[in-house]
Order: sequence, then structure tokens, then C-alpha cells
Amino acid sequence: MTERIKCAIVGASGYTGQELLRLLLVHPQVELVAATSRQEAGKPLSAVFPRFRKLPGAELPFMEPDPDAIAATGAQAAFLALPHGVAAEIATALLERGLKVIDLSADFRLSDADVYEEFYGHPHPAPALLDEAVYGLPEIRAGAIREARLVASPGCYPTSILLPLIPLLEASLIDPATIVANSMSGVSGAGKKADVSLLFCECNESVRAYGIPKHRHLSEIEQELSIAAGESVVITFIPHLVPVNSGIATSTTAKLTEGIDPAAIGEALESAYGDAAFVRLLGKGGCADTKNVTRTNFIDIGWAHDARTGRVILTSAEDNLGKGAGSQAVQSFNLIFGLPETAGLQTA
Amino acid sequence: MTERIKCAIVGASGYTGQELLRLLLVHPQVELVAATSRQEAGKPLSAVFPRFRKLPGAELPFMEPDPDAIAATGAQAAFLALPHGVAAEIATALLERGLKVIDLSADFRLSDADVYEEFYGHPHPAPALLDEAVYGLPEIRAGAIREARLVASPGCYPTSILLPLIPLLEASLIDPATIVANSMSGVSGAGKKADVSLLFCECNESVRAYGIPKHRHLSEIEQELSIAAGESVVITFIPHLVPVNSGIATSTTAKLTEGIDPAAIGEALESAYGDAAFVRLLGKGGCADTKNVTRTNFIDIGWAHDARTGRVILTSAEDNLGKGAGSQAVQSFNLIFGLPETAGLQTA
Amino acid sequence: MTERIKCAIVGASGYTGQELLRLLLVHPQVELVAATSRQEAGKPLSAVFPRFRKLPGAELPFMEPDPDAIAATGAQAAFLALPHGVAAEIATALLERGLKVIDLSADFRLSDADVYEEFYGHPHPAPALLDEAVYGLPEIRAGAIREARLVASPGCYPTSILLPLIPLLEASLIDPATIVANSMSGVSGAGKKADVSLLFCECNESVRAYGIPKHRHLSEIEQELSIAAGESVVITFIPHLVPVNSGIATSTTAKLTEGIDPAAIGEALESAYGDAAFVRLLGKGGCADTKNVTRTNFIDIGWAHDARTGRVILTSAEDNLGKGAGSQAVQSFNLIFGLPETAGLQTA
Amino acid sequence: MTERIKCAIVGASGYTGQELLRLLLVHPQVELVAATSRQEAGKPLSAVFPRFRKLPGAELPFMEPDPDAIAATGAQAAFLALPHGVAAEIATALLERGLKVIDLSADFRLSDADVYEEFYGHPHPAPALLDEAVYGLPEIRAGAIREARLVASPGCYPTSILLPLIPLLEASLIDPATIVANSMSGVSGAGKKADVSLLFCECNESVRAYGIPKHRHLSEIEQELSIAAGESVVITFIPHLVPVNSGIATSTTAKLTEGIDPAAIGEALESAYGDAAFVRLLGKGGCADTKNVTRTNFIDIGWAHDARTGRVILTSAEDNLGKGAGSQAVQSFNLIFGLPETAGLQTA
Repeated sequence: MTERIKCAIVGASGYTGQELLRLLLVHPQVELVAATSRQEAGKPLSAVFPRFRKLPGAELPFMEPDPDAIAATGAQAAFLALPHGVAAEIATALLERGLKVIDLSADFRLSDADVYEEFYGHPHPAPALLDEAVYGLPEIRAGAIREARLVASPGCYPTSILLPLIPLLEASLIDPATIVANSMSGVSGAGKKADVSLLFCECNESVRAYGIPKHRHLSEIEQELSIAAGESVVITFIPHLVPVNSGIATSTTAKLTEGIDPAAIGEALESAYGDAAFVRLLGKGGCADTKNVTRTNFIDIGWAHDARTGRVILTSAEDNLGKGAGSQAVQSFNLIFGLPETAGLQTA
Repeated sequence: MTERIKCAIVGASGYTGQELLRLLLVHPQVELVAATSRQEAGKPLSAVFPRFRKLPGAELPFMEPDPDAIAATGAQAAFLALPHGVAAEIATALLERGLKVIDLSADFRLSDADVYEEFYGHPHPAPALLDEAVYGLPEIRAGAIREARLVASPGCYPTSILLPLIPLLEASLIDPATIVANSMSGVSGAGKKADVSLLFCECNESVRAYGIPKHRHLSEIEQELSIAAGESVVITFIPHLVPVNSGIATSTTAKLTEGIDPAAIGEALESAYGDAAFVRLLGKGGCADTKNVTRTNFIDIGWAHDARTGRVILTSAEDNLGKGAGSQAVQSFNLIFGLPETAGLQTA
Repeated sequence: MTERIKCAIVGASGYTGQELLRLLLVHPQVELVAATSRQEAGKPLSAVFPRFRKLPGAELPFMEPDPDAIAATGAQAAFLALPHGVAAEIATALLERGLKVIDLSADFRLSDADVYEEFYGHPHPAPALLDEAVYGLPEIRAGAIREARLVASPGCYPTSILLPLIPLLEASLIDPATIVANSMSGVSGAGKKADVSLLFCECNESVRAYGIPKHRHLSEIEQELSIAAGESVVITFIPHLVPVNSGIATSTTAKLTEGIDPAAIGEALESAYGDAAFVRLLGKGGCADTKNVTRTNFIDIGWAHDARTGRVILTSAEDNLGKGAGSQAVQSFNLIFGLPETAGLQTA
Repeated sequence: MTERIKCAIVGASGYTGQELLRLLLVHPQVELVAATSRQEAGKPLSAVFPRFRKLPGAELPFMEPDPDAIAATGAQAAFLALPHGVAAEIATALLERGLKVIDLSADFRLSDADVYEEFYGHPHPAPALLDEAVYGLPEIRAGAIREARLVASPGCYPTSILLPLIPLLEASLIDPATIVANSMSGVSGAGKKADVSLLFCECNESVRAYGIPKHRHLSEIEQELSIAAGESVVITFIPHLVPVNSGIATSTTAKLTEGIDPAAIGEALESAYGDAAFVRLLGKGGCADTKNVTRTNFIDIGWAHDARTGRVILTSAEDNLGKGAGSQAVQSFNLIFGLPETAGLQTA
């Protein structure tokens, strides 16, 4: 057997960190050598996450997020599950120490530091790295990811919106000015923080929109849609919180370009994703359901055409912690290190 | 004290029937004299719905849905919670016997029998009554409802979409060709039927779109929007099922008419609903949450304006069994019989 | 119409306070004149609880919990939904000012100040009042409650355990040394506090015991069981948290006294509760379900006999915020003020 | 790499069948060669379970449950996820054709055909095999399982009750006449059948006992407890349904044997399970939580001692579809075929 790749998770005590632990502890080509958490430093993973007890590696103690200490473990790659602003700083330090970095924060997703400041409210902490960072959608940019030192793993909402739309925009099948996306996210998307509005009794039996009209994720969504469309695109995006632990369902609609046969939608999706390991096409009339993708790296995509309005409807479903965060980051990691794309990710 | 109005519920064993029972058993101006169910005939209400035991009236036995027998109870009004097609027939028979009828099915919601046949797949069973039936949105048509013999109480999705949009269309504030509505409904909206796809384990931890692109409720939605707009309107409507017992959250978007000040949106809503007993305006930036309206007759409405796209976003929340079905029917009943609009409906 | 009784709720911003607001805002014989919350003082009820908007009385502003200010509103009765220790102090002050007090905390439930200190970890703050306080189980002590100035409204777990057991112990039908009670509570029982362990994602899809082997509620449970049995009783009590908003299901078992016909169980329950407005007997083999009692003042009780082990099994279900807290307090209030026991409580 | 063992799943369309598919499709030493379902015969697994699409093996078509056809696939082992009564017949046929059989039904769990008839209501369909069948609790009978042709994999409730109790009874630490077990099960335990009582709206926000006082699983529970105690044991067992997809939490109590130091409880558990791959001891005061074991083969066990009553309290948590069904069957399979006990089961 080949040697395992030594990995670190920086910021491993939240929900995304827990998902990365879940995946990397049992990834056949990975040896987890470091997991950091200021709050839990010194405790074994298993004490903080009883779910991991008696799994190999679960007695690894959390450490402080010190770049030198992380590098000293021999880690070759680091996954960052940190708040924006904080991630950029440690990414810089780890890159200097020779690690590959897969950053799950928003810090390197935007190529334009001004847009970052507009949406995140502070100057970009490491603008020099923006050119180098690769926006980590493996289905769109596998080649660049394979060569990357620094991958900016996409946000959960963006992944669910971008993958259905990009092939259609690239083929000019829809009118970019008419895009409306509605997403429903599980509560883990809001993070693991002591906040009354996230209590069980406040979220259970509750459905609500939030963050309108200018959710932060719009910045990366529109950046990537603009690239695909070859023109500047702005969209309407309405996120909702629904009472499930994880999962995002997204319904997107846009006008079919005049003169286009609706069947071209299915063909463009098939051409883009027919062979993709983690995109499952449900065909015309298929509606994606989050229950089929939770705890996997799959994204399911269905579509319909409404002849009455001339609009295309796309439904997609992914796990916000999986394809929307942790497992998509592992998919990029696999590409960077030349592993099979599906390594450690073929579960149901 | 004034005499109570004798009421019947026809088709009282499903979820809408149960909601009507819940409301009418304790309505201070109502005496429930009949509740029908072919399946449960002969059993007391309390045996079928243990939740009602030891409430006054709960020992009333279910009876067969026979129009003569219903009329013989002295019922002055009948609420029909029956499947479409079935409702029209019994409505006809009860009207002939002098009862007022509040029909919660789709049978009398459409003024055009051809549209009915297009959306419901069979010829309309009582087209002669279509002219007379009043589409029962009390906030829009209180006057007509007060005079009605036959009220077609609106569907759950339509109520949540129409109330926010009608004032805006009437004032030409938005472009009707750009309307996109996404709704998330609790599972009770699918009815109480033995169907594997509605099992707890199939719906819990699941979010999914369904019924696209041409859900039946589009027919009444577009009929009423067209009246408000003064022109023929078609919209894109995407319903979703989310794991809550009841409640509908709807997010609707449309382009603001060129040259209109966004503040006009708030003013139009305020002007239409500021004094409405059961519409609560959340103002600019407010997002409606189903948890605030379940088991009530309230609908909450918030709005936002996205300057980047020129679109208005409206969020609304109601109980699909309440304002979307049972309690809205009681609101119409109150109007028909000259009771305070809020009689029996002021609970939290 | 008779004049309404002026009421205050002290500590109205938590889940129990919210339930009291829900009940008292629409209680036909109550005028809510004061609701206190240090945190929310100055804001109208409707701003803190959007669910109450447009209900009569919902614009009342929260006030500070100052006894003089409360008395100045003309309040004749005060409901205290405060932490133990805090409640006793304000109860004393309000009693001095002539109000009747219904205390929903644990402060006056125990007649023995030493037991209080043992279970609550601090000396009793107002031992002089212990003799006077009436343990407010209306089905057991309606007479004393009618005469009381100070009612100690029982805890949620105790109510669900005591009501089934007391008639059996009074008739010596079961062996008190063999009692084992298991309860499953909705998450609202843990209160409305910003605590990671109460987040949606931590409670959803989770079932767990906690607080063993000596939950605080054991003190009042055993006090009341001992009175019923005429001897000192200790029991095993295992509480669990389950992912529902509200509701407690309790399953209790004990050995049938030798020589007793099992049918005597049903007879004793029937004799005790056949005419009780809020106890519903499900008979032999009936299993209580929380879904039938949520948001009501009902407690449902079923029983079974296991000939193989000689044990009786009692199942009960109530709403932890209703019969286990808010509505039971209102039931006592009704008795104190000579209202019908069911006033304001007959809903489903 | 060694050759994979060819496996069949008979009755693969229910919840237990789906769990077996989930495990065996990705088990590194298994090749799934057959999955049967009368209802779905001819369809690929992926069409019935969209969750499995694009996993290796997911295009295998369901076949009829014909023993010859199953044998013709070369299957060396068959997992039976069939109703009792049906399982025995096909087990017999498959054993005759040389397959190892791991039966997840109740058909071979009881060594006494009379007890089977008493609890299951029909004569045992294959009594000749009862002597040979091994009750498949790997932590208790690994040796016999390794040699078995026919393993009767235990029920979900029994596993959660037996594993905590057996070591204590073997060491005479508790009085077997005083055992009371309360279990709370996720809804998948009721199976995937179109039944109104299992609808989302009937189970969500509901907690209830059922099946008292003589649930079928008592037969195997008491058989195994009697073996451990060396005397005939009957217990009180109260199962409950709680609104989670999967997971069982069990709380068991019994009197500590007079004169025994409570610390002996912890020691006996540690001695029995300290080295067990899939039992995790939470120690004194630890309370097991289903959320830590769902979708794993782990069972977590905590304990407490109540000096006031002299009772021991044991809490355990497992996945009813995992350690309570599918993954425990795979654990036995691993033993039978000489694989590492943890093969295919080390996930979180």
C-alpha cells in the first residue's frame, strides 16, 4: 500500500470541522495528523465528538492553531474550516511552510478584493494570494485544482446554484438577466453557536426566508455565473432555513433563450455531467430530494420546462456539509494529490 | 346570548376536516350539528380524534354524507372538506336545501369550466353554479362574501401568493410577466392518506420540490392575479414539501415597474392590509416565519427590494390548514352570517 | 358581562411565560395588566413574540419585575414563571401587596425547607410561607386551592407521574417500593437559553436520558406520593429528552399488590377522574400519546397489567408547558377566583 | 487483494434491506450478487433507492426471491430481511444449496418452538433448524457465530437491552426479578408500510408507548437473560415510538444485589466490553445518546446507581437499523467468513 498523505484540519470543532473529521478519519489514503481548536486544545477528538470514539485516530488531541506546530506534524495538506478573515492569515502561513491548503472559508473565493470588502465588510487580509487561489468546483475546474497550492472550496449555496446553471449559461440556453434562485438549507448551515434563534424549539416546525436581498454568497455565485455567461450577471437569491439537520434544496428558474429547443437543457446537463462521479442527473421532470444526498458528496439535478411562461426550472439537492463543504473539499484534495476522485467518498 | 348558528362539516375525517372541527367545536357562535365521513359513520368524533375527547360536542357521531340527513339536522351552513369533483355534487344538493355552503375544495374556485377541465382532468360537475360562487378571500372580497350563498374558499398555496401580490398588481407596481413564486409546505398539505411517500421516515430530514411546472393551484392563482392586473397573467410556481406538520412559507419575486419608488410597495401593502384583522405586515426587510402563524388565521407578509436586480421580494407565511384552509373558511362564514370577522379565530 | 380579573405574569419572556401569555391574552375572564421581563422591559409583547401581533392586549409593554409597579397596575393575581430562588422573594412581596400568587417555580412545592435545600442547593428563601402554600394539583386538592393565597403549581414531570399513581396508592393497589417512572420530554422543558446542547442540530434526531439518578423533581414527586401512600416513598425516575417542541409522555410501572384484581386499577382511576374536566382515561390497553394533548390542559392516562411479572403499567401524556405548567396554573387560578374550572382552557 | 465474498440480500426493499444494501455495496470484501424483492423485481437498485445511484453495484437489478436463482449467482452468504414465517422457508432452501444464512427475522431467534408459537401466533415453520441456529450477538457468542451456518441476528430492542444486562446477570450483580426496561425507537423500526399511523403528521411531534404489556421481542429478551442469569427471567418492557428516523435509546433499571459494591457494575461492563470493537462504555453517570450511534454499528452504554432506591440504571443507545439490525448482521458475517470484525463497519 502506498503511504498515506498527512493531513491537518484547522478549526475542527464546528459542524464543518466535524464533517471533515468524519471523512478524513476513515479516508483510506489519509493520515490525520493534526486537528486544531483553540477552545478544545488538549482534549482528544473523541472527548469532543463522542460519535468518533473507538474509530482509528479518534484519540488524537486537539491542538492550538499554530502554523509551526501544524507544520511540525509533517502535514502535507491543511483543510481550513475557519471564519472568513481568520482563514486567510493561517492559509498564508501554511503555504509558506509548504502545505497545500484547501480553504473552506470565503477568503479566497473572490478574485476581486473590492468585491470581498463590499460583501464581507473588511479589507481582504491577503490579496496577494487571490490570483493564485482556485475556486474549487471540481466538475468545472478539475485541471486547475490538480495544479493548485491553494483551493478556495465553494460555499454551500453557491455549489447548489452554480452546478445546474453553468452549462446552460456556457451554451447560452438561458437569459442570465432572469435568474431567480430559492434555496432551503438545513440548520447546520448556520453553524454551531449558542444563539437562541438556533434552539431546537425555535427552528423545529418553522420555515422562513432570511438574509434577503443580498446574502454574502451572492458575491461568489455571480462571479462564477459571469464567467460562464461571458458577461456580468446579477441574480435574485432567496435563502430559507428549514428544520432538517443538513441538506440544501435549490430551485432555480430562468427564461429559456428564444428559439432554443427545451431538450437542449437536458443535453447540456448530460454533456457536462453524464460522466461526473458526483453529479446525478434526474432528467426532465425529476425533482431533487435532499434525503438522497445527505452525508454524501453527490449533488442531484433535475429540470423542467414551463411552456406557459417560457421558463426553465432546475432543482438541485446536496448536503450543505458534504458537497456544499466538507466532502467537496476532500474531492479537491483527491485531485491535488493525484488520488482517485472518489477516494474516501463512496458512501451512501 | 344570541342563538348559535347550526353548522355541518361534510368530509370531516381528513386534516382539513379535523381543523374545521377544532375551530367549530369551540366557536362561540356555532353549534356543530353534523359531521360526515363515509368511513367513520356511526363513531363519535372523539373516537376518531382522541384529541377532542371531553370537549363539548365531541360525542357527536359521524354521519353519512347524505344531503337530506344533513338538512334534517337544521344546519344553516355546511363546510365541505371533500375531494374536487365530489364537492360540487353535494354543494348543489345542500344549496337546494337552503344551506349556505363554504366549499374548501377546488370545485368552485375557477370561473371558467374549461380551465377547470384543463387543470383537474374532468368536466366541471356543476357549471351552472360557477357564476354565483364567490372566491373567498375575505381581505379582497368581503362584500361579495357577505352576500354569498356559495363561497369557494381558496387553496393554501394561492392564499399565500395572492395576498401579497394583489395590491401590488392593482397599483401596477410590479411587472406581472416576471413573477416567480416558491412555496414550502408542511406535510399535512398532502392529505391524510396511506401512501409510502408520506411516511415519517420518507419526509423527515427531506426537502424537495414537486409538481412542477404546472401545479393545479396555478389555475386559481393566475385567475385572481389576472383580475388584479387587468390583463392575463401566467407565473412560475415551484412548490416544495418540508418536514413540518403545517405551515406554508412563500417567497415571491417580480420586477419593480420602471420608475416606481420601492417605498410604494410598503405603502400599497399598508393601505390594503393595515386594518385587516388577519394580515400582519412585517415591513421592509421583515421575513415571515411559519412558526408565528401555525394554528391561527394570520398571514404574515414582509418585503424587500433588491436594487441590484430591480426585483421586489415578498415573503409570506400562513398555516396551510388555517388561513390556507379551515380558519379562512370560518372567516368567510363569519362574514356571511354577520358575525364579527374574528369570532372564534382569536387564538395564538 | 362580569368584570375581568386583572392579572400579571412575572417572568414572561421564557417558554412558560409565553404559554401563560398565550392563555391569558384570550382568557374571557382575564385582563392582562402586567407582564415583566428585565431583558425586554419597555418593548411591547408583540415585539418579543411576533406570534401575538394583532391579538387584543399584545401591545402591552413588558415592565420591570418591581412589586410596587405590579401592584400599581391593579393586578389581583400574579403568575410567576421565574427561576427557583428568585420566585420566592417576589412572591412574598406580592402577597404583602394583596395579590394572589400562582408560582410556577419549585419554591413553594416542598413543605420541608430541608428537602428544598438538599435538592436545590441553597437555603429556602421564604420558609415562613411553606405552611400556607398549596401544592396546586387541582384534581387532588381543588378545595385547598380555592382557599389559597399562594399556590405552588406542580412541575411538568411530577404532574405526569402523580396523577396516575395517587389514586392507586391511596387505595393500596400497588407496592410503593417498586415504582419506576420513565418520562420523555419535549425540548421546551429545558427552557429558552442560549446553550449549544439545545441547538436544533444537537436535539433533532437525538434521544437521550439525562439527570439520573436524582433529578430535582423527585423531591416533590416523592413528597406527594408519600402523602398518598401514607408512608415514605422513594422511586426510580429516568427523564429523557426527545425531539418534539412540547409534550411529556410518562410510563410508570409498579407491582400490583398481592391479591388485588387488576380490574381495580381501572376502577380506581375511573372513580378518581371519571368526572374530572381535564383527565381523560384511555382504559385498559390504552396508550397515551403526546400529540393528543399538546397545547391543551388535558392529561391522558392509560393502563395495562402484565400477568407475567405482576406489574401494572401506566402511560400518561400531557403538554409540559400546558398541564405541566401554564394551563394547570390557569386551572388553579380559575378555582381561586370562583370561575368555571374550564374557563379559557377549552381548546383543542 | 483477496477475492470478494459473494453475497445476496433477500427482501431488500424495506428499511432493513436498504441498510444492508448501504453497507454491502461498499463493503471492501463483499461483492453483492443478488438482491431480491417480489415487488421491485427487474428494476435496478438505483431506481428503487435513488440514494445509491452512481455507487458501484447500484445497477444490479432486483430479482425474485427464488432459491435456485439466488444460488445460481454464486452467492456464498445470504442476508434475509423478510417477515417472520417467510424467512424460515427460504432459509431452509438456501442452507440446502450451501449458502451461509444470516437471518434478520425472528424465525430462528428462539430455541423453543412453543415459545415461538406463543409469541408469533403460528407454528414454527422449520423447527428442525432451531438447534443449529446461533443467536447472533457477536459480543456474547463470537465463537459460535464463527462456526455457524445459520445465524439468527437479534432484534433491535433485544440488542439494546441484552448487552448492558448480560454481564451483570452473569456476575449476579442485580436481581433479575426487578428488571424494568423502557425503550424509545425511531419510526423506521415500524417498517416501510403504507399505514396512516406512520404518516409524517401522525408521528412528528408525537411520543407514545405501544405494544404493552407483551411485545414480541420479550420472547428473545427473556430467553437470553435467562441463560445469563442461570434461572428463568421475566421482565417488564415498555417500548415507545419517538419522532426520529432511526435510533433506539433504552433505559433499564434493576435492584443491585444486596451487599454488592456499586462499582462492580462498572467493572463488569469494562471486563465484558473494554476490548469490544463496537461497544463504547460511557462510565458512571454517562447517558447514551442515539445521535452518537446512528448509521454505525456502535452501542453506547452508561450507568448510574441510585443509593436511595438501591437500583442500578443502565442507558444504552444504538441504531435500530444498525447494531439493532443491518450492521450487526454484517458483523456476524465478518466472523463467519474470517474477516476482521470491523470490516466495512468503521464509519462515523
